[in-house]
Amino acid sequence: MVAMKTLVVNKLSLCLLLFVNIIANHAAYEPTWESLDSRPLPSWYDEAKLGIFIHWGVFSVPSFRSEWFWYDWQGANDTDCINFMKTNYPPDFTYADFAKQYTTEFYSASQWASIFNASGARYVVLTSKHHEGFTNWPSKYSFNWNSMDNGPHRDLVGELATEIQQNTGLHFGLYHSLFEWFHPLYLQDKANNWTTNNFVKDKTMPELYEIIQKYKPEVVWSDGDWEAPDSYWDSKNFLAWLYNESPVKDTVVTNDRWGNGDMCHHGGYLTCSDKYNPGVLQKRKFENAMTLDDASWGYRRDMKFTDVLTMDELLKTFIETVSCGGNLLMNIGPTKEGTIAPIFQERLLQMGDWLKINGEAIYSSKPWTYQNDTITPGVWYTSAKGQQYVYAIVLNWPSGETLQLGAPSVSQSTVVSLLGYTGTIEWRAGTTHGIEIILPPLTVNTQPSKYAKVFKFINLDN
Amino acid sequence: MVAMKTLVVNKLSLCLLLFVNIIANHAAYEPTWESLDSRPLPSWYDEAKLGIFIHWGVFSVPSFRSEWFWYDWQGANDTDCINFMKTNYPPDFTYADFAKQYTTEFYSASQWASIFNASGARYVVLTSKHHEGFTNWPSKYSFNWNSMDNGPHRDLVGELATEIQQNTGLHFGLYHSLFEWFHPLYLQDKANNWTTNNFVKDKTMPELYEIIQKYKPEVVWSDGDWEAPDSYWDSKNFLAWLYNESPVKDTVVTNDRWGNGDMCHHGGYLTCSDKYNPGVLQKRKFENAMTLDDASWGYRRDMKFTDVLTMDELLKTFIETVSCGGNLLMNIGPTKEGTIAPIFQERLLQMGDWLKINGEAIYSSKPWTYQNDTITPGVWYTSAKGQQYVYAIVLNWPSGETLQLGAPSVSQSTVVSLLGYTGTIEWRAGTTHGIEIILPPLTVNTQPSKYAKVFKFINLDN
Amino acid sequence: MVAMKTLVVNKLSLCLLLFVNIIANHAAYEPTWESLDSRPLPSWYDEAKLGIFIHWGVFSVPSFRSEWFWYDWQGANDTDCINFMKTNYPPDFTYADFAKQYTTEFYSASQWASIFNASGARYVVLTSKHHEGFTNWPSKYSFNWNSMDNGPHRDLVGELATEIQQNTGLHFGLYHSLFEWFHPLYLQDKANNWTTNNFVKDKTMPELYEIIQKYKPEVVWSDGDWEAPDSYWDSKNFLAWLYNESPVKDTVVTNDRWGNGDMCHHGGYLTCSDKYNPGVLQKRKFENAMTLDDASWGYRRDMKFTDVLTMDELLKTFIETVSCGGNLLMNIGPTKEGTIAPIFQERLLQMGDWLKINGEAIYSSKPWTYQNDTITPGVWYTSAKGQQYVYAIVLNWPSGETLQLGAPSVSQSTVVSLLGYTGTIEWRAGTTHGIEIILPPLTVNTQPSKYAKVFKFINLDN
Amino acid sequence: MVAMKTLVVNKLSLCLLLFVNIIANHAAYEPTWESLDSRPLPSWYDEAKLGIFIHWGVFSVPSFRSEWFWYDWQGANDTDCINFMKTNYPPDFTYADFAKQYTTEFYSASQWASIFNASGARYVVLTSKHHEGFTNWPSKYSFNWNSMDNGPHRDLVGELATEIQQNTGLHFGLYHSLFEWFHPLYLQDKANNWTTNNFVKDKTMPELYEIIQKYKPEVVWSDGDWEAPDSYWDSKNFLAWLYNESPVKDTVVTNDRWGNGDMCHHGGYLTCSDKYNPGVLQKRKFENAMTLDDASWGYRRDMKFTDVLTMDELLKTFIETVSCGGNLLMNIGPTKEGTIAPIFQERLLQMGDWLKINGEAIYSSKPWTYQNDTITPGVWYTSAKGQQYVYAIVLNWPSGETLQLGAPSVSQSTVVSLLGYTGTIEWRAGTTHGIEIILPPLTVNTQPSKYAKVFKFINLDN
Repeated sequence: MVAMKTLVVNKLSLCLLLFVNIIANHAAYEPTWESLDSRPLPSWYDEAKLGIFIHWGVFSVPSFRSEWFWYDWQGANDTDCINFMKTNYPPDFTYADFAKQYTTEFYSASQWASIFNASGARYVVLTSKHHEGFTNWPSKYSFNWNSMDNGPHRDLVGELATEIQQNTGLHFGLYHSLFEWFHPLYLQDKANNWTTNNFVKDKTMPELYEIIQKYKPEVVWSDGDWEAPDSYWDSKNFLAWLYNESPVKDTVVTNDRWGNGDMCHHGGYLTCSDKYNPGVLQKRKFENAMTLDDASWGYRRDMKFTDVLTMDELLKTFIETVSCGGNLLMNIGPTKEGTIAPIFQERLLQMGDWLKINGEAIYSSKPWTYQNDTITPGVWYTSAKGQQYVYAIVLNWPSGETLQLGAPSVSQSTVVSLLGYTGTIEWRAGTTHGIEIILPPLTVNTQPSKYAKVFKFINLDN
Repeated sequence: MVAMKTLVVNKLSLCLLLFVNIIANHAAYEPTWESLDSRPLPSWYDEAKLGIFIHWGVFSVPSFRSEWFWYDWQGANDTDCINFMKTNYPPDFTYADFAKQYTTEFYSASQWASIFNASGARYVVLTSKHHEGFTNWPSKYSFNWNSMDNGPHRDLVGELATEIQQNTGLHFGLYHSLFEWFHPLYLQDKANNWTTNNFVKDKTMPELYEIIQKYKPEVVWSDGDWEAPDSYWDSKNFLAWLYNESPVKDTVVTNDRWGNGDMCHHGGYLTCSDKYNPGVLQKRKFENAMTLDDASWGYRRDMKFTDVLTMDELLKTFIETVSCGGNLLMNIGPTKEGTIAPIFQERLLQMGDWLKINGEAIYSSKPWTYQNDTITPGVWYTSAKGQQYVYAIVLNWPSGETLQLGAPSVSQSTVVSLLGYTGTIEWRAGTTHGIEIILPPLTVNTQPSKYAKVFKFINLDN
Repeated sequence: MVAMKTLVVNKLSLCLLLFVNIIANHAAYEPTWESLDSRPLPSWYDEAKLGIFIHWGVFSVPSFRSEWFWYDWQGANDTDCINFMKTNYPPDFTYADFAKQYTTEFYSASQWASIFNASGARYVVLTSKHHEGFTNWPSKYSFNWNSMDNGPHRDLVGELATEIQQNTGLHFGLYHSLFEWFHPLYLQDKANNWTTNNFVKDKTMPELYEIIQKYKPEVVWSDGDWEAPDSYWDSKNFLAWLYNESPVKDTVVTNDRWGNGDMCHHGGYLTCSDKYNPGVLQKRKFENAMTLDDASWGYRRDMKFTDVLTMDELLKTFIETVSCGGNLLMNIGPTKEGTIAPIFQERLLQMGDWLKINGEAIYSSKPWTYQNDTITPGVWYTSAKGQQYVYAIVLNWPSGETLQLGAPSVSQSTVVSLLGYTGTIEWRAGTTHGIEIILPPLTVNTQPSKYAKVFKFINLDN
Repeated sequence: MVAMKTLVVNKLSLCLLLFVNIIANHAAYEPTWESLDSRPLPSWYDEAKLGIFIHWGVFSVPSFRSEWFWYDWQGANDTDCINFMKTNYPPDFTYADFAKQYTTEFYSASQWASIFNASGARYVVLTSKHHEGFTNWPSKYSFNWNSMDNGPHRDLVGELATEIQQNTGLHFGLYHSLFEWFHPLYLQDKANNWTTNNFVKDKTMPELYEIIQKYKPEVVWSDGDWEAPDSYWDSKNFLAWLYNESPVKDTVVTNDRWGNGDMCHHGGYLTCSDKYNPGVLQKRKFENAMTLDDASWGYRRDMKFTDVLTMDELLKTFIETVSCGGNLLMNIGPTKEGTIAPIFQERLLQMGDWLKINGEAIYSSKPWTYQNDTITPGVWYTSAKGQQYVYAIVLNWPSGETLQLGAPSVSQSTVVSLLGYTGTIEWRAGTTHGIEIILPPLTVNTQPSKYAKVFKFINLDN
């Protein structure tokens, strides 16, 4: 009799506890795209505009061809890769053998942070694990194939996370590859036509949860999803957890690579393809992930100067991207020693120098009515303060004495200025529409920057 | 019409086939010790008497102190190991870094097999995975920490399995460590006081099933069980599967290391402790696993001649073991290059030479009424043909002219002979009991062996 | 009597033979400084103005601190170097052990040549052997401590010599260190206070002769002489041979580092000190050897972007040097892999671009009456065609509308132009003397170069 | 006054001392074979009978085929060696690259000394430099190709010399190769048909003098002489210096390999060929240099037990050699780690055990009238005390009850004993000559040794 009563009370307690939990966690998001896609993107991300992408891994050891070296060599049997191995290594050398030389002896998270800071970027995304499966942190699920047991003997992710989160104003993010080219459990699941998911259950998802909890990244840059549907990856459940319960649920942003068919359709923001630079305004927030070494994301020891984007090329893609509503995620590949090649340092500093003068047209800007000008090519627009300010970013300084723009509608009170230039800018209304700006006599000494210049309009009539 | 009939017949066949399979597979064993312990030990094992144990792994690279090097170094912080590393390796060298030098370039399964054959052993047990967790086969569950991806770049287990199974009459067995000293999933389960078992579920049991199915070992030599109960290891379910369904269900033997408290109590045969040589008759079949290098199971590069058992020492433990009902599992540690040290080869050949003459007293023998003699020390007994034959194995040849034995009761028809000696052996009954054997004048030329000699009795009165 | 006659005849023969030899070899130069210094410098050298210096050796492997790493580590016991070794290498690692990692797998003499060509340089000087003693060619006198037996397994010197000499218009030269920090024979000679010279006789001189005969360098850039007098080095005899008999006797130039006290006084041209940039006209031809990485001649893996000279800094030292009558030898340190860092490639290309426009003021130019301007700092002069042409090289473009120069005396017929600019340049005579140039409205589009600009004067009155 | 007297006495003493020195040093030997061959062999050598030869060098790293690996691979282009390199090393791996792995971490001169001591040997000869040219000491003439700069980073020769000379009663000797297979100076001298001798002057002779002065070896075991005459090697001058002036002039012994045609004719003692075991009495002292691994002098990692001489084989060659007047120089090849394989340790200890019992017949013995018996094969003789004692060493114990010997002539007073056996030995004179020994009933317990037995005769009539 007493026992029965106790049981009832216990059941009631359990019920209440459950209820409290539900309230507390108020599980706002369901593991469906409809629900997950409804989450607003945390605002910091759109305001940031510029991020730095870092591809670093065992591939930085051969440092040849690209970060896909292993696949090219033993998956695609590429002749160059095969010859490279034949010429330089013993016959039975495996990819795993490279890990020993992933030394990172010069890796200093604080030096990296100071370079990133000087670049004007507002967030950083590091490869926690690329398709090779090597984890740049001491994962519980990758015994003796991680950066603590092997090569670096350090927690590469942890050192950078701590530095960025504690000593800079930048946001820290992590790239994570869902698949691993050669993981036997993955290959078996694949052979089973995705009817089994041992790889997801035992390896890739535990790792993804592990890095969220351990390093609290505010960008989760998923990749390597395309061979299997999101049902296989169990990614919607992960996102629901990420948005509802994870330690970064309020500020984290995610991309769109969560399963075959999801890219460019679902997730936090869209990446659509590598180096996505659509040139027209996009309905949803997107990110143009591109790389300073045009031929590779990972470092290549034989990279030539001519492979590296010039500042003009880099600025062009940045400005086009921002004008169309995107962020630029600008990639560098550090060396196996942990250094950032001086040529990359130079580009980052040049970018920072340009942003010091012209950042007003970039950070927290919004796309304008027009993205690029209707008359003069190479002129791209952004706006701020609810379009009170409009910025025309001029990639190529005209040869003539005036610059004709078709997009701005001028009014009596329109004021034009040039960022970084203290003199007054004269202008006249275009014949039928638009504006003709009298170019100031910018000499080599008076130009605000060697690269793109920015005209700012106040009180346009658009 | 015809089709219909065929269909019926086919269905019937299928049904019958199914029935036969059910009968054949009829899941005789339950996952309880009561049931599992009831399984009779396949007879080949007791008849074999002598096996070869092989400890081979990444520990064969430092090849210092013992196969427990990793643990001694980083678990127990042993000073010698720490100094060894300090003196010979860079500061941040990890155990995983040794794998690269596990080269095995001279490993030839057929050469090994021919040495094992010559030793007189009837089975071979190889470490598939020791406590370090490195798998000597390309395991699906140990990506890039296995002998195919790392160091050897070969399937070490597979090569020996094929050779032994196809080209010799020996039985092939595998050692497998349940735990791994430093596997993070294991350490986590342990920290959780065994309330979780991710390590068992995702790592160690999948591997154990994998090697059974892939290499069909007839000995499963489990180890590394002692920290956790068999409920954690899920080992009773494994054994039930092994006995009921596995490809080796009819012939496989197992040992007793399946969970804390099981050793010396449950399982196929008992090992009780390393180098278990009880000296008295045992109720259940046991195995004395010992090693030729008295100080280590794994190869030590600095092993001295004086560390190696002499033939007299080796034979002593062998004969005592067999007399008490056990098998001897005689261990050698191959080098990282894949060779077997000549001093070990010598011992194995000496063992084989001795068995060629005296094997009759060993193979398929049974313990006798007495294990060792009541008067003369160093004399051990075995029997054969239902005790029609009794063998007295004399470790130390007496200095005098006769050998007095207390155990044998002689009769008129008792016949005594010396194995390997063609002359007649004279004897007389002991004063009160036993027998006094007139020693034949064995010169250096006429002795059957330099080592222990065996008297054979027919028609004793015991 | 007969004997005496024979002797006389023999003596006569010997005398004749000697005479013939003298005629044939016309031994113009005696091994004295008076004679050696009298040799005119082959004209190609002064005309060339710009050379590329290459520091490459085993020091490119640690690639830490500088090419003096070995000495700093084990000669000067520098704490940073000692710690670097402690942290990254086993305790007993020696400098010789680095050679194994001097891999040079990406070294392509033709790629190097094409980069050098694009830089506008007219000669190239490669370290054949630095103070470490490792020979970048397969020397007969450095068995197993050379680039063929060790590391590269290639003739590094030979590959570049062939490429430069056969496929470019550049002159090929070799750096050679007389001393070797740690060569035991050298140390012994030194301990003997230079009374013995086994090191010179058996090692360093044979090697120097060997590279002259094998690679026919047109620059012999000697170094490492300062601890001992030239009598110890036997260098005057070497130079006499070089000038009189060697395969490069007609075109070779040498520097001034041939023994303690010789530098800045004797030899082909003067180097005086590293980075010698005197700022005033020199009586003898000199060379300013400097390096793009301001902190090191050898490659440093941890070189930062801020350690590399900017183009403005590089041009400044180049122009100052040429104005004062010197050549610039601009150093790069290739990597152990055989690549030239992209940041160095960039500088070389920027230099080449500048010279394409402004080379007229540099190549084959002569110092003018004035070296730098008397009124405006940062303006340096050169001249051509017997001072018919005078060039004012303006490092910093003025902020105002005119440029005032004090050195040029103008006449009616004076014509001023700006190299790379097609418009006319207006000017007026200075108030008391000199000239005031009306600066053309150079915009970002119309400037000939981003860097220094060159005014050319014809018909000055100086 | 007293002081003056003391001074005079002192001066006198000094003068006398000088005189004695002059007499003692009076340059007895001319650099001619007639003179050099006239030097009496220091007596310790003949008395010693047994030495240990040690082949250790970079060849111990590949440890494949033999110490001639380099030559077989790249001189003779042996297919096995080429394949071995192809299979296990990168394409451009050179022999010099092996030096890095010559680690010697377990090398302990005192452990070696204790093993050598236990073997009964009386001298030790270590390879200071083999044909590969790598010096096992820090030679002044082999910069960065020696055991201090490379691999071991230790003075291998020095450590053993000190240990042997200070802590044992053994004599220390050094092997030295005159030629080096691939030294460019040597190859050039050879190409010049020995008309130049730069290699001898600058490299090999300075090294030989260096080791004599530094390590004071009492055996100089020259080798590698055969391609050139002794006039090229300048070896007679070396020997004159060695015998007249060197610090070991009184006790040093040398062999006969000093130039083409000298072997077996000139020098200290004769070696004639490797493994020289003539089987008949020799006129001059000789040495049988042989090796425990029948197939190699250097260690082979893949040596099999069956490649190693059995004790019976080893004793046979030892006894035959000593009976004919020779010494046995028994070779072992240590590993690159600095260990002596246990199988070699076993042989050395077995040898020492045998000598403990039978050394009387060996040390300081002289050949007898007969070397081996005239009736029974496998019986060899030595003698002592001016033939008062004669020893018959019986390799194979006879099957019958007596041993018939033809060589000894017995007398009434002849006494026969068996070394290590306390019983009396009966005998009778042979029918026509010789002796018939009644074999004692040696059982497995009473035999003095498992191997050869020695009968000692006193008062023979020969």
